[in-house]
Amino acid sequence: MKALHFDGKKLQLVEKDIPETVNGDSLVKVLYAGICNTDLEVMNGYMDFRGTIGHEFVGVVEKTNSPGLLGKHVVGDIHVSCGECEFCAQGLGRHCPNRTVLGIQDKDGSLAEYLTLPTRNLHIVPSDVPDIAAVFAEPLAAAYEITQQLQILNDYRVLVVGDGKLGQLVARVLQFQTENLLVVGKHPEKLAILEELNIPTRLLSEFDAEEKSFHVVVDAAGSWEGWQLAMKMVRPRGFLVLKSTYSGEHKCNPANLVVNEITVIGSRGGSFSDSLHLLRKNIIDPSEIISAVLPVSEWKKAFKIARLPESLKVLIEF
Amino acid sequence: MKALHFDGKKLQLVEKDIPETVNGDSLVKVLYAGICNTDLEVMNGYMDFRGTIGHEFVGVVEKTNSPGLLGKHVVGDIHVSCGECEFCAQGLGRHCPNRTVLGIQDKDGSLAEYLTLPTRNLHIVPSDVPDIAAVFAEPLAAAYEITQQLQILNDYRVLVVGDGKLGQLVARVLQFQTENLLVVGKHPEKLAILEELNIPTRLLSEFDAEEKSFHVVVDAAGSWEGWQLAMKMVRPRGFLVLKSTYSGEHKCNPANLVVNEITVIGSRGGSFSDSLHLLRKNIIDPSEIISAVLPVSEWKKAFKIARLPESLKVLIEF
Repeated sequence: MKALHFDGKKLQLVEKDIPETVNGDSLVKVLYAGICNTDLEVMNGYMDFRGTIGHEFVGVVEKTNSPGLLGKHVVGDIHVSCGECEFCAQGLGRHCPNRTVLGIQDKDGSLAEYLTLPTRNLHIVPSDVPDIAAVFAEPLAAAYEITQQLQILNDYRVLVVGDGKLGQLVARVLQFQTENLLVVGKHPEKLAILEELNIPTRLLSEFDAEEKSFHVVVDAAGSWEGWQLAMKMVRPRGFLVLKSTYSGEHKCNPANLVVNEITVIGSRGGSFSDSLHLLRKNIIDPSEIISAVLPVSEWKKAFKIARLPESLKVLIEF
Repeated sequence: MKALHFDGKKLQLVEKDIPETVNGDSLVKVLYAGICNTDLEVMNGYMDFRGTIGHEFVGVVEKTNSPGLLGKHVVGDIHVSCGECEFCAQGLGRHCPNRTVLGIQDKDGSLAEYLTLPTRNLHIVPSDVPDIAAVFAEPLAAAYEITQQLQILNDYRVLVVGDGKLGQLVARVLQFQTENLLVVGKHPEKLAILEELNIPTRLLSEFDAEEKSFHVVVDAAGSWEGWQLAMKMVRPRGFLVLKSTYSGEHKCNPANLVVNEITVIGSRGGSFSDSLHLLRKNIIDPSEIISAVLPVSEWKKAFKIARLPESLKVLIEF
């Protein structure tokens, strides 16, 4: 099968054996896989990963121990957890200390013709959700998780920092939680998509909101600049939700968190059943936030587009 | 009256006029005032403060617009807030943007024979609480606030980093919230006080708990080293409560907060009525955590003792 393999230095399209299913795994033929910023970070050394990259996908079950799944279109939780530890017992397999992670940690990923996952990780895509929308199940779950970690009151002033892939999803989710949502970003064309949805936006260069004036600030910018702006805008006793990771260390002074009694909520993954529910409600119009869908033969072009500042999601078709 | 005045360079015992009461203030004759780490920080430039330092006190009301208070022993909320803004409306006057703060921000403090505070800030000390215990009302309120910001389940493993003044109070409060409390510190004699109360402790040099194994870590160490240890010990989906401020900037990587979905709770002040209630329940035995009580004439000695690593609380008697 074709697979996009990262050898620690570069990414290449290679031939691999179709992976074997063991211990309650299912075999999934990938239809579409998304390119996520984390994949680009993996290629910069994140998690020191070697193997097939990718973790966003929709596919068809070709081999399974659960007859009801055969032939079904599925998405899947990317964390392969032990099922035995205290995190697994709480439904937080993504924090299982024994986990592997699809395309990120010790497990071949979704940018390939086939992948395996434990059958219990798979979720059937409802028939009214298009395949290319289903690829968003994983990042949308991560965006939706904010609402599970923090009760956002209707009159809270909420700022989303970042208009990229993640910021777009976060804004779509949070518009239902507050009447005072604002997205600040660098890209007029990305902000315009949100304005079409009646979500207020502001270009960073024109952003003049009062400091310390937002009850909740979500940092989805993916840069240290985003963290700095978020810290400046959150009000005393407010909440700063961190969705972005940044490589390397940065200078900061946590005293501000103490003096202003700010709560910082680190937030990474979420529930696939929640996000499939949202996808059924058409929370995402794929045509708005997909910049390109390319066959695997054009993977180099796909990654080139994914790296452009003006791009949103890029999918590879297998 | 005698007052310990900081002129931006050094602290001196000076003569000042007794402060005038205006706009609903009461005049309080100070009996005892505590030396807090914040006072030492103020003398290092924190808040760029000039004036009488100090904010922990117990005193007698000598002049007031509220006849019931006259002659009563009182403690007082140190934040002089506007009473009009949205923070004041929520009972969070300590975040009022228009506030002054006793001995910290634009208002003469408690290390003097007299101070003024708005009458509404004062709380009568119950007759069964000794004066020298009442001085702890402010720092104890700050310690107790943790339990108001975070629901600590009975089976949570809770680590307090720091065995100093604040760590001592935090440990005394949290022992009632969890059966799995551990305090780690550098000072055998301070840890011994906690062991007497059946609170488990560990010397930092012998600390070998598993990393990422505590549901809640409270950083009360007052040093960057404390933050680093706290970050290492909190488990995924756990809570890191920051009680200490550190001057200056430090290198950190917030990615860990995101990957492990950690919640950081900045925590500073608290409710005086809660802490007076705790003081009535004898949660503090002043003899355990007071290192010295000295008359104001011996203020230099008092500050010298307060700076010793082995010291706990030092009070000045007026």
